[in-house]
Amino acid sequence: MITLASDFPSPYPAAMRGVICSRSDARIEDIAHDFPRQNVRAAAFWLREVLPYFPPATHCVVVDPGVGTDRAAVVVEAGDHYVVAPDNGVAIPVARELADEEFSVWDIEYEDDETASNTFHGRDVFAPAAAAVHDAGGADAVDRCVQTDGWVDLTLPEPEVVASAARGEVLVVDGFGNAITNVPGSVVEGRETVRVGGESVPVRDAYAARDPGDRLVTVGSHGNVEFAVNQGRGDDAFDLGVGDDVLLEW
Amino acid sequence: MITLASDFPSPYPAAMRGVICSRSDARIEDIAHDFPRQNVRAAAFWLREVLPYFPPATHCVVVDPGVGTDRAAVVVEAGDHYVVAPDNGVAIPVARELADEEFSVWDIEYEDDETASNTFHGRDVFAPAAAAVHDAGGADAVDRCVQTDGWVDLTLPEPEVVASAARGEVLVVDGFGNAITNVPGSVVEGRETVRVGGESVPVRDAYAARDPGDRLVTVGSHGNVEFAVNQGRGDDAFDLGVGDDVLLEW
Amino acid sequence: MITLASDFPSPYPAAMRGVICSRSDARIEDIAHDFPRQNVRAAAFWLREVLPYFPPATHCVVVDPGVGTDRAAVVVEAGDHYVVAPDNGVAIPVARELADEEFSVWDIEYEDDETASNTFHGRDVFAPAAAAVHDAGGADAVDRCVQTDGWVDLTLPEPEVVASAARGEVLVVDGFGNAITNVPGSVVEGRETVRVGGESVPVRDAYAARDPGDRLVTVGSHGNVEFAVNQGRGDDAFDLGVGDDVLLEW
Repeated sequence: MITLASDFPSPYPAAMRGVICSRSDARIEDIAHDFPRQNVRAAAFWLREVLPYFPPATHCVVVDPGVGTDRAAVVVEAGDHYVVAPDNGVAIPVARELADEEFSVWDIEYEDDETASNTFHGRDVFAPAAAAVHDAGGADAVDRCVQTDGWVDLTLPEPEVVASAARGEVLVVDGFGNAITNVPGSVVEGRETVRVGGESVPVRDAYAARDPGDRLVTVGSHGNVEFAVNQGRGDDAFDLGVGDDVLLEW
Repeated sequence: MITLASDFPSPYPAAMRGVICSRSDARIEDIAHDFPRQNVRAAAFWLREVLPYFPPATHCVVVDPGVGTDRAAVVVEAGDHYVVAPDNGVAIPVARELADEEFSVWDIEYEDDETASNTFHGRDVFAPAAAAVHDAGGADAVDRCVQTDGWVDLTLPEPEVVASAARGEVLVVDGFGNAITNVPGSVVEGRETVRVGGESVPVRDAYAARDPGDRLVTVGSHGNVEFAVNQGRGDDAFDLGVGDDVLLEW
Repeated sequence: MITLASDFPSPYPAAMRGVICSRSDARIEDIAHDFPRQNVRAAAFWLREVLPYFPPATHCVVVDPGVGTDRAAVVVEAGDHYVVAPDNGVAIPVARELADEEFSVWDIEYEDDETASNTFHGRDVFAPAAAAVHDAGGADAVDRCVQTDGWVDLTLPEPEVVASAARGEVLVVDGFGNAITNVPGSVVEGRETVRVGGESVPVRDAYAARDPGDRLVTVGSHGNVEFAVNQGRGDDAFDLGVGDDVLLEW
């Protein structure tokens, strides 16, 4: 199985799909093609949350602000999974999750490929590499792949938790408008309320435990604190966007 | 085959897809993931219109305003189809269509599952249940499924048709802007025009039978009356939204 | 393999998918369902750019402003590919690309099909025809298909290139906001800048060769000149939309 994830508008993912289908019989499943555009950290978060639910697969990931520059292209081998991606860190947090830190990285040598465009490496570099890694059963069996230690690292920001407060950051806002932070859900467990911006906000187990339109703090499906509104948008109600600092007090 | 339908923004459907792929070799096909959010009745309409075109399958449907509350999760067996869904009625109109009223309902007992989140039952309850029902070939072969009579019913609203008028409701607005009602197309058959809001509107067989931008009443692919504009939006032109009353006179 | 492309909002493509799955075991892959609505020329461009990356397949294409009128439905046989589409020219540019001009066209005789709706030929005409052509291994083996010379032609507009300038047209704007023209990339090769609307604009190989927010002219993955902004929208920055004329001078 090959999965596809990108920040590419339609129909660009279809060109990648065609390239893969032309080279491999692999089943293809989409992860998402609407990751926050060129936001490597947000994509890294989503990949870490979603890819571990898949069986062993080759994951083709293209969130690539540096396309056409001399940034490398890599294959990250993590357990039984392979993540084919630009070398900008996007694949590293999920690799740590999948492989318990024991992952390896391979450079994809594509620079001598005269047929590769400068603007669409998803189609011309990453999709062919994903098909090759999938069909070969590993990066080591692909000629163009060379093991390396020189890859770009990325760690998602850590929250600061003290006796009466937690300070963190909004990692992503999902399509429901939930502002998902890096603050672990454990800090709100057992609390009726927390203070956010000087105001008391109920902590609830489910969106529907509040009336439609009412704000809450909850522990999302990622295990992290989320700012939410039942049947509404938490990002608007709490005035929060990707990368904003958050402070919870109790 | 397992089909997926939800009101979930990306990449949440991918987590469900991963869970299914990890447990089953079933082919997965998407129905839609942009059903009107938390609108059980609109989703019930679309499922009734679309699922009967599929061969026998297990359909995993998650439009679930009550996630995290004590609403049940069910499997509805309708003919050779199974619909795995929250017990809020969303699966019932399509079950009636598929099975000519002769359907049965099974409770999915998930309440003792400590690993299920409170906010994402699509991933933690419905996707595993769909994989289990698909692979077992039926709900009766799945330990957690118990037949029940205590399910939530839902019927879509009926129109009122008299000699010179029909009164109904907009069930959904599609992405073209067509306002699709519950009024049967037969009431406009053979008519050149109908009166809507005191104004005469042409009845036509095809959008293109009117000039671009002009309004029409037509019988849509669901067999119901639609308010439309050729190459434009009927909902705007007729000022109609989901749930609005409509009155056609002749 | 059957691919699906349309300008249909969700969940209409799912009904087509269901029809195909009910009649064929073909693998289904999506091209796009958000082609510029009812814009035959833009869809023809995208199909020409994307379908050649696929292995031999039956492509079901529905961009169909004339649905319900007496426009024909056709199967275009181009090399080992079949394109099932309305007879409005949408399939012709890709057929020329796939078959080096040597393609043939078959009429799909659907007019006597009482079950076909007037508004949704994607479901009622094109999906069944695509399944039939796929499973029969060609249009000649399908009863309803009759070879014809009477099809609608479409050629994408040609640019005018002289010694010191090129005049062309924006064929499409992609979801990144890149305004993609019909001007061949060769006219800007080796140049540092070109003049657009009297202003000098850098020519660069990659978006990231400019600072975020800065304008550039580049050769896109289609080999054509694009007006772009690094991490921004070229259509806004250059005030260009589909169909607009462009003039590059040097």
